[in-house]
Parts: sequence; structure tokens; C-alpha cells
Amino acid sequence: MTWLDDVKWDRDGLVPVIAQERGSKDVLMVAWMNREALAATAERGQAVYWSRSRGRLWHKGEESGHFQQVHDIRLDCDADVVLLSVTQHGHDPSIACHTGRHSCFFNRLQNEQWQAVEPVLKDPETIYR
Amino acid sequence: MTWLDDVKWDRDGLVPVIAQERGSKDVLMVAWMNREALAATAERGQAVYWSRSRGRLWHKGEESGHFQQVHDIRLDCDADVVLLSVTQHGHDPSIACHTGRHSCFFNRLQNEQWQAVEPVLKDPETIYR
Repeated sequence: MTWLDDVKWDRDGLVPVIAQERGSKDVLMVAWMNREALAATAERGQAVYWSRSRGRLWHKGEESGHFQQVHDIRLDCDADVVLLSVTQHGHDPSIACHTGRHSCFFNRLQNEQWQAVEPVLKDPETIYR
Repeated sequence: MTWLDDVKWDRDGLVPVIAQERGSKDVLMVAWMNREALAATAERGQAVYWSRSRGRLWHKGEESGHFQQVHDIRLDCDADVVLLSVTQHGHDPSIACHTGRHSCFFNRLQNEQWQAVEPVLKDPETIYR
């Protein structure tokens, strides 16, 4: 499919992907996709990433139940970053981070230190059964 | 500085950085920083990136006047992506993209094609004098 060829895949065949929550516009997380993952995401309407640590496709929510419904897929001017507009399912308030927090960007630079400034909404031990 | 050591720099010594507009919460762009760029960004309170194409520090706005005032610097759970909360200066409505658009994420996947869905706010020829 041509639109997949338009993406500038990096030397590992991957592209970084930002998941932004549609309602709050919060940036929830960044993960990676290969060609197959992006095609699957577009087809299913749910985020499917490439897990670099596990070396396989990762249907977000497959273990946690925290699926991401995808409303919109965008590509930047250089064609090397993808932006998803998503609804984060599985918990209210929504949890995207494996630490049980809303967003993965919970570390804020304060006084030359990274400080966790967002609460854990659910114990990760109970998310991954 | 310890907080710079906490970042997981990639094999090229870089980290991807998302610039999100504080007021609108729009994702404006993604660029890269090395250690020096991130230190300079924190010190100046303005975004300083590493230009991979030019192989040098790039103080965003140095040519266009479209500076980014940085309000907040965040690091994700894996310590390998940075998120900036910025005010995008230099034009109203704000322009972050070198194409003269508000955001770099102006290509939307529609009918299996990337379609430019955001207007050019200023001719790029007149931005870079």
C-alpha cells in the first residue's frame, strides 16, 4: 500500500508513534511501529505497536485490557513520526502507562531532578495478571 | 549533571523530543536533542535541538524567529522520550512547521492516502530570509 511506502522508516524499519488522548489532548505515550504494526493499526482501529524489548507485535491492551481506540492517524512533515488520536480504554480515569499512571510522561524536571508528579491510579501488579 | 545522566540516550547520543503547545495542547513537532541541547534548553528556557541534517545545535527560531519558550520538561517512564510544554512565538496563529503550518502533523490518513489537512499560515519563502 502506497501510504505505507510514504513513511520514512528508520534503519531498523521502525517509526516513533505518539499516542495523544482525544478528549484531554494529553500525550499518553510514545512507542514504535514497523510497517506491519502501522498497517494493523489502520485496519483494526486499535493501536498495534512493535515491542522492541520483546521483538514482536504488541497489541496495546492485550495483557492489561488497556486498549487504544484510534480515531486519527497523522504523519509529520518529514514523514518520520506518526501521531495517533486515541481513546484510552480499560480504566477510568484512563491509564496508558505500565506503571499504572495516566501518562508515561510523569517525570517532571524540577530543581535539576526528575520528579514523579502524577499519581499511580492502579497498582501495576493488578494490571498484568 | 545527574538529571542528564538519567536520560537513556540512543546509540547516536540522541533522544526524541515532542513539543506540545501549552495553550492548545496541540502536538507541534518532534525533533531530537543531544545532551548539550537538552542542557541548553533547560538553561535558556527556550528549545534548542540537535539538527541531524545539519549536524549541529539548532536554536529553534534562530532563522525564522519562531522561538519556543519552554515551560515544562518531562521524561517518560522509559527515560527515552522528552516532552516539552511550550509557547510557540513569532507568529499569531502560531507556526512551528518549516512548511509555514501550525503543526508538523498536518498529514492525515484518509482513504489510504496522506492528505494535508492544515492550512499554510505563512509562505515559507518569507519565513526564512
